[in-house]
Amino acid sequence: MAGKKSQLKGNMLIAQSGGPTVVINHSLVGAVLEAKQHPQIKGIFGARHGIQGILEEDFVDLRRENTRFLEKVAETPSSALGSVRKKPTHEDCLRMFEIMQEYDIRYFFYIGGNDSAETASIVNQEAARMGYELRCFHIPKTIDNDLRENDHTPGYGSAARFVALAFMGDNLDNRALPGVKVNVVMGRHAGFLTAASALARQYPDDGPHLIYLPERPFHIEKFADDVKRVYRKHGRCIVAVSEGITDKDGTPIAAAYTKEVDAHGNVQLSGTGALGDLLAHIIREKTDIKRVRADTFGYLQRSFPTVVSPVDAREAHMVGRVAVRLAVRKDVDGSVAIKRATGKGYRVAYKLVPLSAVARETRSMPDRFIAASGNDVTPAFVRYAAPLVGPLPRMARLHDYPIRKRSR
Amino acid sequence: MAGKKSQLKGNMLIAQSGGPTVVINHSLVGAVLEAKQHPQIKGIFGARHGIQGILEEDFVDLRRENTRFLEKVAETPSSALGSVRKKPTHEDCLRMFEIMQEYDIRYFFYIGGNDSAETASIVNQEAARMGYELRCFHIPKTIDNDLRENDHTPGYGSAARFVALAFMGDNLDNRALPGVKVNVVMGRHAGFLTAASALARQYPDDGPHLIYLPERPFHIEKFADDVKRVYRKHGRCIVAVSEGITDKDGTPIAAAYTKEVDAHGNVQLSGTGALGDLLAHIIREKTDIKRVRADTFGYLQRSFPTVVSPVDAREAHMVGRVAVRLAVRKDVDGSVAIKRATGKGYRVAYKLVPLSAVARETRSMPDRFIAASGNDVTPAFVRYAAPLVGPLPRMARLHDYPIRKRSR
Repeated sequence: MAGKKSQLKGNMLIAQSGGPTVVINHSLVGAVLEAKQHPQIKGIFGARHGIQGILEEDFVDLRRENTRFLEKVAETPSSALGSVRKKPTHEDCLRMFEIMQEYDIRYFFYIGGNDSAETASIVNQEAARMGYELRCFHIPKTIDNDLRENDHTPGYGSAARFVALAFMGDNLDNRALPGVKVNVVMGRHAGFLTAASALARQYPDDGPHLIYLPERPFHIEKFADDVKRVYRKHGRCIVAVSEGITDKDGTPIAAAYTKEVDAHGNVQLSGTGALGDLLAHIIREKTDIKRVRADTFGYLQRSFPTVVSPVDAREAHMVGRVAVRLAVRKDVDGSVAIKRATGKGYRVAYKLVPLSAVARETRSMPDRFIAASGNDVTPAFVRYAAPLVGPLPRMARLHDYPIRKRSR
Repeated sequence: MAGKKSQLKGNMLIAQSGGPTVVINHSLVGAVLEAKQHPQIKGIFGARHGIQGILEEDFVDLRRENTRFLEKVAETPSSALGSVRKKPTHEDCLRMFEIMQEYDIRYFFYIGGNDSAETASIVNQEAARMGYELRCFHIPKTIDNDLRENDHTPGYGSAARFVALAFMGDNLDNRALPGVKVNVVMGRHAGFLTAASALARQYPDDGPHLIYLPERPFHIEKFADDVKRVYRKHGRCIVAVSEGITDKDGTPIAAAYTKEVDAHGNVQLSGTGALGDLLAHIIREKTDIKRVRADTFGYLQRSFPTVVSPVDAREAHMVGRVAVRLAVRKDVDGSVAIKRATGKGYRVAYKLVPLSAVARETRSMPDRFIAASGNDVTPAFVRYAAPLVGPLPRMARLHDYPIRKRSR
């Protein structure tokens, strides 16, 4: 609802949704700490497991948590309130709204991806229809970095840092014991996280040597040819592949494999090694390269403690804080989007955008971030992602000063 | 050769072998920095890719690398000289010995696991047989922690730290989105690395809830029952499984799967998600649990930059340094083993042990580290492993102070 400027008094409800990230609790804690500063916000309730907790009235008292301890929670990975994958029906939204009335909820914050923005949007519409004043905010989070209106999203920088570090180490492992290594990275529709593997490159022959994104169709023959070419040049090859790659008809490559060897399974992209194993199998079949391995980075990408981008943690905190600041200031609803300032240096601003602008659809990697070859990213992408990930350690190689051969 | 006490003058050769670790370069650099302090050591040569580099005379000059830079190399994961999986034939060993004579090598250091100790032993015997004085040392390294004579081995502590952190994060992820999660950990014959998952437990209901080691036969029915029981109790279940688990006849569980669904493949334990996918499939078949996922931690366990145990880094440095100190002092050969002092606090000593005592056979987890149930470790194991991994961050949970339900 828009228009009124009254100091709206009542309780606040906050919840977390979708795949956790390593900084999602920074957003929760940012919002709670900000809320504590505004007397019109009375109870600060957390719903456990997102909308499921709202529907079950599974609420916890966040005001009783002390600030020092909350700061520890902020540094702890994965949704402290619990999360949920459930998409609410229209009846669910009506029921949630009823419950919010019952608890005198006047401030509602939902931390999540585009689905969460949509949920917030429906609840908000219902409140408007019933003439119940509710300040309704979406707080962005997703390692996929696929929310519209945002330069990037909280959670992405740290997950991208994990991916970059993983490739830095794996590149050295592959250099020590040469062969082909395929690493499958999360990201169903957007290639941002897979693309972050490019940040691992420090020496000219460092991997990943090939990067396959869901934004470009994946051709098995071309893939095999690409690997052969790199292997011929470097004697090894590191490949970054998004779990969401599809063929030219949009069929997930993983699905083709599942049909082939597993009569039971559904197409499960994360939490399975099937795609990596398929790609390794293809290389073994189509080349005479002996050492071929695949790893699927899996859930570690979004939950690994200690691998946190400082910029990401700060921004995750700020989107939570700014959402509350905007909500208490006047009668607005929306999502807090991160906008990057143009010009030199890295600076961002937090802007209010309509819930509908973030809900439902997602965004993909823009063309200017994808190399014309379709198997790499551009320098523009590296410039875009580097500040989000934070400073990476330098990998030091021996100079390999040669010793003259003595054998006759 | 033993007996002589002369100051043996000549060149030094050092090489790295087997699976890399995140601290293996600390051993290389420890040895090189120590060697620079002893005038009887003239050239300091590194062989690239282990014995392959020796046979091909692919040597680099390590004396020309400056100390500051070497310290950066030490902090860089994975074998800086390159590694190799090749097991030398008897002819290879004769040829290596010839080459060493040609280069006036009098000090030979081989960093690796039990196979590397065996290689060093054969070269040493050949030198003795030919009456050529060669100080021949094995420097221990393996994330598997399976070298005999050692309380633990350099590389294990950091890999164990990775595993513990990974389970800490994944436990929180699983708590946010409950289900069954199976994580496959490296370790073909010894369960030490899988066991390190137990260090992730901080709250009473934290995972891993089940730990399966190669030291105990794996029963598929019992596994499914175990998971069901945990799931009934906690509403979720995190499982740590060693890649090397076998059935009661010693057949790898992964092998059974490979036979079942892949007509082409060999039994490849690392670099494939097959075992994890099999176990997830079993849970889906034998229970009505909906959310079942598997991750295979793969090569990240041994190569991830920044995840380093400080104790492990220091000890890796010291085994390299001590090997050189022993070699220049008198005519001895052997391996440097890490012994833990008894009594309060964590202290170690570096002891010379015969090459033959470390070569060939490996060790497994002792019974006192394995719970009687066969699906967990003991508190004794946790006390053993904790100082090797270093201090772990505390994960902070909300107190979940309940809000009274209002709905009628």
